[in-house]
Amino acid sequence: MKKDTEVNMMHGAGGEVMGELLQTLTAFKHNNAGGIGLESLDDGSTFDIGGKTVVLTTDSHVVKPIFFPGGDIGRVAVSGTINDLSVMGARPVALTCAMVIEEGFPIADLEKIVASMDEALGECGASIITGDTKVVEKGSLDGIVINTAGVGVVDADSYLIRDRALAIGDKIIVSGTLGDHGMAIVAYREGFDLGDQLKSDVAPLYAMIHGAVTAAPKGAVHAMKDPTRGGFAACINEMARKAGVKVVVEQDAMPVRESVASAGSLLGIDPLQVANEGKCVMGVSADAADAVLAALKKHPYGKNAVIVGEVVEGSGVVMRTRIGGERFIEPPMGDPVPRVC
Amino acid sequence: MKKDTEVNMMHGAGGEVMGELLQTLTAFKHNNAGGIGLESLDDGSTFDIGGKTVVLTTDSHVVKPIFFPGGDIGRVAVSGTINDLSVMGARPVALTCAMVIEEGFPIADLEKIVASMDEALGECGASIITGDTKVVEKGSLDGIVINTAGVGVVDADSYLIRDRALAIGDKIIVSGTLGDHGMAIVAYREGFDLGDQLKSDVAPLYAMIHGAVTAAPKGAVHAMKDPTRGGFAACINEMARKAGVKVVVEQDAMPVRESVASAGSLLGIDPLQVANEGKCVMGVSADAADAVLAALKKHPYGKNAVIVGEVVEGSGVVMRTRIGGERFIEPPMGDPVPRVC
Repeated sequence: MKKDTEVNMMHGAGGEVMGELLQTLTAFKHNNAGGIGLESLDDGSTFDIGGKTVVLTTDSHVVKPIFFPGGDIGRVAVSGTINDLSVMGARPVALTCAMVIEEGFPIADLEKIVASMDEALGECGASIITGDTKVVEKGSLDGIVINTAGVGVVDADSYLIRDRALAIGDKIIVSGTLGDHGMAIVAYREGFDLGDQLKSDVAPLYAMIHGAVTAAPKGAVHAMKDPTRGGFAACINEMARKAGVKVVVEQDAMPVRESVASAGSLLGIDPLQVANEGKCVMGVSADAADAVLAALKKHPYGKNAVIVGEVVEGSGVVMRTRIGGERFIEPPMGDPVPRVC
Repeated sequence: MKKDTEVNMMHGAGGEVMGELLQTLTAFKHNNAGGIGLESLDDGSTFDIGGKTVVLTTDSHVVKPIFFPGGDIGRVAVSGTINDLSVMGARPVALTCAMVIEEGFPIADLEKIVASMDEALGECGASIITGDTKVVEKGSLDGIVINTAGVGVVDADSYLIRDRALAIGDKIIVSGTLGDHGMAIVAYREGFDLGDQLKSDVAPLYAMIHGAVTAAPKGAVHAMKDPTRGGFAACINEMARKAGVKVVVEQDAMPVRESVASAGSLLGIDPLQVANEGKCVMGVSADAADAVLAALKKHPYGKNAVIVGEVVEGSGVVMRTRIGGERFIEPPMGDPVPRVC
């Protein structure tokens, strides 16, 4: 395949094509501060301060529209950063917030966004402690870009969790219904308004995840990741590939809302390939899976948590269909829903 | 004055008008993690991990053009973050890099930007350990936005330095010539090419600042800040206001290159009101000022360092002119040079 000379939309989709651009963007020689570095492409990176493992992560948010059923760009920004820290076993401590704002942007909308970010912070005990504001000329930006970076600490009651340590025999748990965020965004853009039938799941998951991780013996959660861009399909394939294992999931077990499945059929979009903003995917030691599942289900954001499959020898991700067949769950090449976060 | 209902260019200028927008953007209730918080509007904020003081900062960069005499957006992004940490007495450890890229952006330009960021990191021993990439449709962004957030640690040989602790009798030191970056950007935009006569000073200052801070008795550097948007004028006024003191500087001592002064006259722009990206402003105990100055001058980035004035009782910032008069140095209301960083 000819190498692209310009950035295209596929490069930002979280799918396979993105890898090509990432080769350029991760070419830093200075890419590691003594822990997990940039080259790992995990949800966050790590280094040590005063004997503690610190997790650092960043995301810039360009979701369009900025207000949508179930949330807004502010809630997406805070939740995205909180969740990247939480899936690595860290407690979110301090966040940054940098906004680039187009001239003419309504200040009332900024007020709503700040209030929404604040509410999400309040759900998990984290704070935005520093920020930056840039204003650019009308026409040189489509509204607003919000970057949040976050620092978390791996506390003594938790442990560092990677996305790459699935082990043979692990149960795969998803913390709730899949595809809600991406499908809500695209349906809203297409002019459907299905109210509560189809809305984003965007939520900060620290409390839910911390409860689940500490409900099982230390180390029992082998791997965790949040299925954002590229959805469950991209997430579970990355987890399987990094661990050198095969994942088998049961179609009947996959939690997809009827409204999301219907919208997906109508729009020709696979709910497993679109972003979630309030879910996590875990690989858990089989003997601890029930305890982790029970803890997830105790939290409102995890009430639909379910074991969807298990880890076996081999490679790739397959789904056993209800008529007894098997089909591969492929990572999306691009993304059917650009600007989803 | 009627409160604006929309964001305008003045809001992003680093000048006085920006304060109005900042009231909205700093309305977070969750704004502090046990140290210096968002409400302080210092160069960075702090919290503790494992008994160490950690400094956190963020900046999004929208400089236009992205390549300019003396630097590029990548060097500005890394240097800006390094310098925010350094002026607070911290050693830069780990940075994040989040890019929002317009569809069609040349990959060769990304490669140049990454190489430039890497070079700046190498100058100060810091690393970019995590990142994010978003691609947006052509026309919805003017090129690229780069956010860098950074984590630094206040080591035992240093100490936390604020922007607000100027004390009566302190000497004011600037680490080199003023206005180079902002004037280079605006002159280049206007079509002047003066080569080495007029180029940005963008540079990562950790080594220079660390050398200066540790050359004097602990605590002798009372206050420090980097004079970015709004230039020296905005910076020194903020420092004086926060400390409740008056600063008097000598016109003859102010280090401004002839080329910068000439371009300023031609364009009607005050060199003291435009951004620097490789300078710091310090308030130093009088008995330690010579030692700090000598240490600054030993480093290439500080070779033009000079004592420009001192702190007295009162308020505001005045400049004694060479004919014996006095005039106020006012903080700019807006900014003569938008998108300078």
